[in-house]
This record gives sequence, C-alpha cells and structure tokens, in this order.
Amino acid sequence: MKQDVSSLVAQAREGRPRAVARLISLVEGASPQLREVMAALAPLTGNAYVIGLTGPPGVGKSTTTSALVGAYRRQGRRVGVLAVDPSSPFSGGALLGDRVRMSDHASDAGVYIRSMATRGHLGGLAWAAPQAIRVLDAAGCDVILVETVGVGQSEVEIAAQADTSVVLLAPGMGDGIQAAKAGILEIGDVYVVNKADRDGADATARELNHMLGLGEARRPGDWRPPIVRTVASRGEGIDEVVAALEKHKGWMDERGVLVDRRRERAAKEIEVIAVTALRERLADVHGGQRVRVLSLAERVLAGELDAYAAADEVTRALASG
Amino acid sequence: MKQDVSSLVAQAREGRPRAVARLISLVEGASPQLREVMAALAPLTGNAYVIGLTGPPGVGKSTTTSALVGAYRRQGRRVGVLAVDPSSPFSGGALLGDRVRMSDHASDAGVYIRSMATRGHLGGLAWAAPQAIRVLDAAGCDVILVETVGVGQSEVEIAAQADTSVVLLAPGMGDGIQAAKAGILEIGDVYVVNKADRDGADATARELNHMLGLGEARRPGDWRPPIVRTVASRGEGIDEVVAALEKHKGWMDERGVLVDRRRERAAKEIEVIAVTALRERLADVHGGQRVRVLSLAERVLAGELDAYAAADEVTRALASG
Repeated sequence: MKQDVSSLVAQAREGRPRAVARLISLVEGASPQLREVMAALAPLTGNAYVIGLTGPPGVGKSTTTSALVGAYRRQGRRVGVLAVDPSSPFSGGALLGDRVRMSDHASDAGVYIRSMATRGHLGGLAWAAPQAIRVLDAAGCDVILVETVGVGQSEVEIAAQADTSVVLLAPGMGDGIQAAKAGILEIGDVYVVNKADRDGADATARELNHMLGLGEARRPGDWRPPIVRTVASRGEGIDEVVAALEKHKGWMDERGVLVDRRRERAAKEIEVIAVTALRERLADVHGGQRVRVLSLAERVLAGELDAYAAADEVTRALASG
Repeated sequence: MKQDVSSLVAQAREGRPRAVARLISLVEGASPQLREVMAALAPLTGNAYVIGLTGPPGVGKSTTTSALVGAYRRQGRRVGVLAVDPSSPFSGGALLGDRVRMSDHASDAGVYIRSMATRGHLGGLAWAAPQAIRVLDAAGCDVILVETVGVGQSEVEIAAQADTSVVLLAPGMGDGIQAAKAGILEIGDVYVVNKADRDGADATARELNHMLGLGEARRPGDWRPPIVRTVASRGEGIDEVVAALEKHKGWMDERGVLVDRRRERAAKEIEVIAVTALRERLADVHGGQRVRVLSLAERVLAGELDAYAAADEVTRALASG
C-alpha cells in the first residue's frame, strides 16, 4: 500500500513516533519511496546536534547514553537515539534486550529510540545511518545520540556521522587503550572515563591524557579533548559531559568546524550512495553489465587477463553508460 | 628501489618464502607494481584448491587449520595458509601470538603461512584476499587454507573466496548456532564439530543436522554438507575432514560447480576493483571530482538537494569521464 509521504513527514514533525518509525523503515529498507522521502526531508534538516558515542564493550555506553538523554530532557530538548548494531541484520523500533536502562525513557514522548542493524546492508553503516539521522532531524529532534551496540569495528564510521564524538573508556582497560589507540585516539572530541568510582580510574585517565598529549600534533585546530569522569549508573559527571559537549559545539561554531564536518559528512554520504548505485548497476544481470563481468571473469580464469585489466574494461563500460 | 617482478615471480615459483612474502606485500599494499605483479601472475594461477575455514571464536580454528596443514603435508602437497584478521590493521609474515600450534609448521619449506589484516583497507577483505591467494597459487601451493582470526563478521566474505567452505562449531555453542544460523548455515560445504570429546558434542551435531535439513530446500544442487567430528588438538577426525573436502571437490568438478564458483569469484573481484577505482576517482581532490562532490554537499546542507539527487549528478559526472 502506497503511503502518503508528505502526510507521514507532517506527522513526524508533530512528534508522532509511529510516523518517525515508518519513515526510518522506508529510508532504511531502500523502499521505492526512499527517494521521495529523502527529497521531502531535505529542506527540513540541519537543526539537530549529532553526538556519536563509541567505546569498547563493557564501558557502559548504553547507561551513559541513557543518562545523557535524561540530562537533555531536563533541558527540554527533544532527543533521538540511534543504536547502531553492525553485527546484526535485525533493525526495529523495539528496545534491545540488554538496553534495560533505556526503558526509563520508553514512555517519554520527547525521546525517540531506534535500533538499527547494518550487517548485510549494501553500503553498511555509512549508507544507512545518515538517512535515519536525517529523519530524526526532520522530526524535530534537537539532539541525536548515535551509539554503537555490541562489538564493532565501526568506531571510525560512527564518528564520521557525528558532529561531536564521545569516546568512552573504563578503568582496568589500560591494555584496551593500547590496543585501540590507532583508532580511538584520533576520533574523540570528548573522552569519558566511566565507572570512575572503581580502582584504576586515575590510571586510566592519566594514561589517556598522556596518549592524547602524544597525539596532539596530529590533531587539527586548537581543540584539546577534555577527559570527563563519570559514574553514569548514578548520573555522576553527566552534567559535566553535557557541558563539555556544549563547549565543543561552541568551539566548532566559532571556528567554522561544524560546517566543515557537516559538508564532509554530506560529501561522504553522496559518495557512498553513488558508489552503491554503481555497484548495483554492476550486479544488474538484466542490464547486461553482469553478463559482461562474467565473461571477463572467464578470461581471468583462463589466465588471459588479470583482474585489474578486467576492472579497467568494466569502468570504461560503466563510463560509456 | 624497484624490484624486478619477473625474477621475484620466478623465485616464488621455486618456493622461496621471501619472494612469496615480497609479492604478497606488493599486492597487498597497492604498490605501484601491483598491476605488473598481477599481470605476471595471471597465467600462472588456477591450480590451487582454496579452502575457507570460519566459525565463532573459541571453536579451535587455528588448531584445526594446523592439523589440516599436517595432513596435506603428509600427502606431499604444498600448503599455503592465509590467516585473515578483519579487526587488525597489521599484516605480515610473522606468526600471530596466539597461533602457537602453527609453529609446528614454521620451519617446513612446504608450508607458507601469512597473516593478513584487512581493517581499513579500501575494499577490505574482498579486495585484499584474492590477490594474496593468487600469489600463493602462482607460487605452487596445491592447497590454500584461508582462515579468519579473531572475532569477525566476515564468514560470508571468507566463504566467497573459497572453493570449499568449512564451518567449525564446538559443543556448548547451541545458542551460537541459533544466533549465527542466518549466515553460517548457508555457507558451509563441510561442517566440523570440533572438541567432539566434550559433553554436548552429540547435541551440537544433532541440532546442526536438524537445521541443515530445514535449510536444504534453499541449497542449490544435490550436495548435502557432511558433519565431521574432530578433536583437532589430538588430530582425531582430521583425515575424515580431508576425505570430506576431497569428496566435495570431486562433486564440484563433476557438476561444473567449481568452475562456476571460480567464475563468480573472479567476477566479484573484478567488481570490487572497479568499484574501488571509481571510489578513488571520487576521492581524488586534484582531479576535480572531489571538489564537485563538496559543492554538491553544500547544496545538500542547504536543503536545496537531497543526497540521492546529488549522487545522481556524481554518477553522471563519473560516466562522462
């Protein structure tokens, strides 16, 4: 049954959760109406502040996310939460089983929570997340928290979707910092040492501070990421995280960094969509491209051609339509 | 220093491990000589039997791989092992720390072991693995074992690289089978229940057998994947795995499935290279495309254009050269 996109968009802007859910399903599932939805949303977006939360498993990401939702709600802001699970093929509006603390907000009309699976998606996270973010943005969310769920190699991808990236750590993960440093130390705008009431919190913060100092030369601009200590399960330190986020947003606004990041993000999104479209064109059996690729593959198997020379022929063929 | 590719290839074919290592580094690192190497290897490949090994962490993948290496060596075959770690950015010829059992074969000139990291690679596993496989193939390996190391969501990708896919399970992972069934039950040509001396081995094999029966309708052809029980750490059942592999290879040869799979694999490789090339073209700042994408991104940010309409403009621009 064809849905009326403009009425769905109007309902979403009124804050109707079912309309928001339906729009996300439409953009996520690459439905025939995807383009219509995206065109309808385009003029309505750009208002939300997008915060990414990443960190190793066990640091308390969902507890911290939930505490941040509470803090923003107390400020009267509308909040969207996008819980991205790169290891699952199942998306939906339902709460994930292990996100117990999120249920604090389940009945709050000012909070929209959505889990999104990206496994198996063409284009993956980089394709699916921006579109869901755009729906939440158009629906009037002032703040959107994008959190990875479970084990993921997607810290960098999540960070790329956000205006500000929060990296969470916890005490006793010193080795974890070492192992993760390649990725994690380059993406954080704000660092949180959660479970700061536990032994080793000082050591973790100190090590992190040291490593951020070492990496300073590689950071653009003059923003030195703050390290905030929290006990998210008791709400301790959450106001300080919010303050650090506001400060980072202010700094970005002042220096033009926010616009630069958003432009890069939109450019990346355009590229992913374009590349995905080209890939689909390659896979299109009926369009003849696929047949052509298979006949090139025959020649590669026969040793007449290497895969690179074959790929050159494919890109030439795509270029000529 | 420019290396003489043809002499490297000649040395690799004589079985010199350093030449093999150097060639893999050249193809893996997207060096300027990549194309020259691939062109030189093209006529020399297609002889190796490529076996993929996947399964959840803790089932004994590397132990089983090592036992299979031993079995094939006893048959006088030359064996290549490619241990793919999708979560690591570090590749190399060195053994990984936790692959202790592999050191049984470290001094055997008939075995070439290589670890390969695919994190952060443009095109990822699908791009890097076929090229390393081609080097090992050209170097005269009769059998190439491609194994995932660590936690990965890459079972399906590894399976796509292999002639025959072995899926490993272990007792006490019943829930694991449930969770993984979407992926794992569709890719295995041979199933191994390792640690079969432990409690629950019967239940695991039975559950697996049941689920494979349910999925039978979705399987092409008349191959019913066998379930082999092993205690790889003691070498038990390994000859039966080798026999199951040979049987599967024979079945594929007879039905033309092997050629079909290899053609599909080559086609996929060509597509990945072509898409990667197009993506690089998009990212090429100096070529002007990148500038064009950024100006489209501005219009997306301004709400004048949605990302799909912008992507259409990009694919049109790529198509016109």
